[in-house]
Amino acid sequence: MRVRGAPAIGVAAAYGVALGARGIDSSDMADFADGVSGVCDDLAAARPTAVNLRWAVDRMRRAAEGHADAAAAREALLAEAVAIHREDEAVNLRIGARGADLLGGAGTVITHCNTGALATAGHGTALGIIRSAVEAGADIRVLATETRPFLQGARLTAWELSRDGIDVTLIADSMAGHFLRTGGVGCVVVGADRIAANGDVANKIGTYPIAVVARENSVPFYVAAPTSTLDMTLATGDAIPIEMRDPREVLEWAGVRVAPEGVGAVHPAFDVTPSRYVSAIVTEAGIARPPYGESLPALSGAAGRAAHGGDA
Amino acid sequence: MRVRGAPAIGVAAAYGVALGARGIDSSDMADFADGVSGVCDDLAAARPTAVNLRWAVDRMRRAAEGHADAAAAREALLAEAVAIHREDEAVNLRIGARGADLLGGAGTVITHCNTGALATAGHGTALGIIRSAVEAGADIRVLATETRPFLQGARLTAWELSRDGIDVTLIADSMAGHFLRTGGVGCVVVGADRIAANGDVANKIGTYPIAVVARENSVPFYVAAPTSTLDMTLATGDAIPIEMRDPREVLEWAGVRVAPEGVGAVHPAFDVTPSRYVSAIVTEAGIARPPYGESLPALSGAAGRAAHGGDA
Repeated sequence: MRVRGAPAIGVAAAYGVALGARGIDSSDMADFADGVSGVCDDLAAARPTAVNLRWAVDRMRRAAEGHADAAAAREALLAEAVAIHREDEAVNLRIGARGADLLGGAGTVITHCNTGALATAGHGTALGIIRSAVEAGADIRVLATETRPFLQGARLTAWELSRDGIDVTLIADSMAGHFLRTGGVGCVVVGADRIAANGDVANKIGTYPIAVVARENSVPFYVAAPTSTLDMTLATGDAIPIEMRDPREVLEWAGVRVAPEGVGAVHPAFDVTPSRYVSAIVTEAGIARPPYGESLPALSGAAGRAAHGGDA
Repeated sequence: MRVRGAPAIGVAAAYGVALGARGIDSSDMADFADGVSGVCDDLAAARPTAVNLRWAVDRMRRAAEGHADAAAAREALLAEAVAIHREDEAVNLRIGARGADLLGGAGTVITHCNTGALATAGHGTALGIIRSAVEAGADIRVLATETRPFLQGARLTAWELSRDGIDVTLIADSMAGHFLRTGGVGCVVVGADRIAANGDVANKIGTYPIAVVARENSVPFYVAAPTSTLDMTLATGDAIPIEMRDPREVLEWAGVRVAPEGVGAVHPAFDVTPSRYVSAIVTEAGIARPPYGESLPALSGAAGRAAHGGDA
């Protein structure tokens, strides 16, 4: 949890592979490849839910291939990590530009967890859309959930937005429903840790109830994510592994126990929002709308072609 | 917030009137009545949402009437406060007995906030139903929400249930949705601070999203409350005043600021769950089911007749 936010985890893992490769002392390329593969396996297993991790590590695996010697491979791995880093910031700026119009010229937006510069290489996904909308002149007020148990909303999102001069008001996670029902909320914008081929979205725990209550009140629910968050190998969100974290993170606050001794807790770190609650998915390659079974493969393919330098 | 929980607030207010009457030094009955009336007005204005407060204070106003001297009135006021106290415990036991069957013989139950002996005169409303079901042999596992920002679930509900040997697991408020969708939850049971004539329920902030997600997943959502929580003067929940508390309670945790300086918060302490999400309302006088516009007046009337000593 020193690094959190799906895109930032991908970038950090890429640098992790490059750094790990520097520590593999071998002039034999087979040994070197084994070593890099081991580093990749370890990093890919660090967090189960965010698919960006696997995506970044897979890019690093490919970047390690076909070199004459270990020095050249190490050089290529560092270059690939830097590329993933820079691409993520560019991707975020494109997500922001594409999504900004969805927020309209003014209004209240609810966001959950942190999806800003502290969760990505820069700008942010859901926060990137908010930033781009404000830069384009929109008069946006953000209701940011505190996001228990790690309080990413209170500690990170509130900090990022207030530093940018964007109007932000903190609410407890349990308050989003009240404002969706009564408070003139224009839309909800969140990030994602993994999106299945049918548009089901895994994201920070607490996203799903916000999505259900948003639909119940006819408030649009938008998801912002790079195409590297799309996992077209999974038919539905039911197959997305949900990371179960240490119950102490729920029982304690900043190391101080809240609950009585002897009481246990459970800590699913993510939940899955079925695609029927998702109004649109904003990626750098375009905005997908239902039916996602048709719109997402098209975007995923477009992103793949763009990454390889053309539309063919 | 030294006293919380709608029934406990009613009991405390009743004793508050009795205590206040002891401090009114007057031999003139008109002065004494003015003094008691002032105490009643002050106490009734202390918290806006829970109607049990007004109900208890109104009972005390009536108990103060028609006495020959202040000493007799003071005596009658103390007797009435004791009666309200003892009745509440009896009412809770009846709610528990009536509601226990709803939980079935076994299963997982989600509850929110604290509705136990620490929120009432004893036994509890929603927790009273859980207690009565367990006493009757049901094999119940409780998922208790921590209930930000005051953490009544983590500090009070988890403590009460574990002390009773009832299986309790703590979750963050944002996790209830995940378990309703995936976790084989049998039902939700919560308390109430005020119930309108149409069955709309004001209760601790965060109740409404749990109710919406419960219905979305076909999980019954039960409300447990004494008939003193029914406010038949309000046609719908839209007229229930929602207490807005100090934003610092959201920004801080145990006096330590969580959010960056300069960031504001809002703190609605309650929300309103429209009656279409409520499967049943369990009172000491019986279980009301939709349409509540018909079932609640019948229960309210039955409770009123019972309190006056007969069915006529």
